[in-house]
Amino acid sequence: DIIAAVKTHFSGPLGRPLSGLHAVVTAGPTHEPIDPVRYIANRSSGKQGYAIAGALAALGARVTLVSGPTHLPTPKDVDRVDVEQAVDMLSAVEKALPADIAVCVAAVADWHVAGENGQKIKKEASGAPPSIRFAENPDILATLSQHPTRRPALVVGFAAETEHVLDHATRKRQRKGCDWIIANDVSHQTGIMGGDENLVTLISADGAEQWAKADKHAVARQLATRIADWFDHRRKDS
Amino acid sequence: DIIAAVKTHFSGPLGRPLSGLHAVVTAGPTHEPIDPVRYIANRSSGKQGYAIAGALAALGARVTLVSGPTHLPTPKDVDRVDVEQAVDMLSAVEKALPADIAVCVAAVADWHVAGENGQKIKKEASGAPPSIRFAENPDILATLSQHPTRRPALVVGFAAETEHVLDHATRKRQRKGCDWIIANDVSHQTGIMGGDENLVTLISADGAEQWAKADKHAVARQLATRIADWFDHRRKDS
Repeated sequence: DIIAAVKTHFSGPLGRPLSGLHAVVTAGPTHEPIDPVRYIANRSSGKQGYAIAGALAALGARVTLVSGPTHLPTPKDVDRVDVEQAVDMLSAVEKALPADIAVCVAAVADWHVAGENGQKIKKEASGAPPSIRFAENPDILATLSQHPTRRPALVVGFAAETEHVLDHATRKRQRKGCDWIIANDVSHQTGIMGGDENLVTLISADGAEQWAKADKHAVARQLATRIADWFDHRRKDS
Repeated sequence: DIIAAVKTHFSGPLGRPLSGLHAVVTAGPTHEPIDPVRYIANRSSGKQGYAIAGALAALGARVTLVSGPTHLPTPKDVDRVDVEQAVDMLSAVEKALPADIAVCVAAVADWHVAGENGQKIKKEASGAPPSIRFAENPDILATLSQHPTRRPALVVGFAAETEHVLDHATRKRQRKGCDWIIANDVSHQTGIMGGDENLVTLISADGAEQWAKADKHAVARQLATRIADWFDHRRKDS
């Protein structure tokens, strides 16, 4: 019947080109505890990652959003898993596999505090500051990109840089083994961290492509469309 | 006239016993930057401090709330000054003086990162974690309690403890030179940090007095009433 045909049409490749695909998106900061009351955080608001999760869902993907602590509402039609530390984020991401698409937007802490203190660290009578030892966190983007059995078909990473943005991001893409890196300049001057706009460059095997400065939702829609195009070409090539 | 007399009555000692007095309240966490994207924070939500600022204002005090980063609305009739780091909090508090009452609820970081890095700290090729040096932060409660010229008449501190709560808090009161300490147990089990209830003990020169577990707003009203009583006795004694 006509109604069914129309529904199929718009829920199919044209209206919802990502339907049938599963995307895992990480977003937000991680909080790495120092002791029961203190932690190390970063300035990621989660806005860009949440917008991407919402944009992928709008194009029909089933989306699992693995989120660090944020104050944002869950985007429409997105399954959200809340985590705090990088180790928990990796576990949640691995649990969400298999996935066709992974977009790692979370600003994951590079280190956690080694041997987190079960009690609040007190000021010493001597007044000497504490010494905090760090240990490296798991690298979620590299783990996904180099996964021996369940590598998503398309792995996209983000690189928040304050200097030598293109150079750092290009090397990051090679080092991690991901397909695309979205590089953005988060130096103090740009006001991007926590703000509503983003100025990004997409770096792939084909080169670098700077996008016009835009609202984080517009950047998300542009990326989701590019991801849909990539799967479309892949289907045609195979 | 009768209306003026009624107004005076309810805006005076009975209805608004703190009118004519200025209170400075600190609340929330501080964020101490490590580099442009990372910082050290603590789990204070700011709820208890905001409730106290609101309760003091409701009893007629002029209230300056010096707040670290929170996601809370400013209480009614309260002047709010937003700060991020401990050093900025101290500056804002000193700028707000003179005050009759100081209630230091903020969970001020004991240390800041010495020589904050102007660029994002990168992972080294060696994979070695960075070493972070700390320097002591100003002690806002002690500074106010021992202020040579502008010590508020009543200085109240908070002590968030995870063990030996009474013992630690009693010694904190003596060390800082404040009048009262409100001690609360923030160990993982109590669910107080970030929660809506508080279980507190008021420690003064007269001893320790445990209050019933209550909503943070009820604790705030009880403290504001105790502060009003203290000024009432002081007036009668003089």
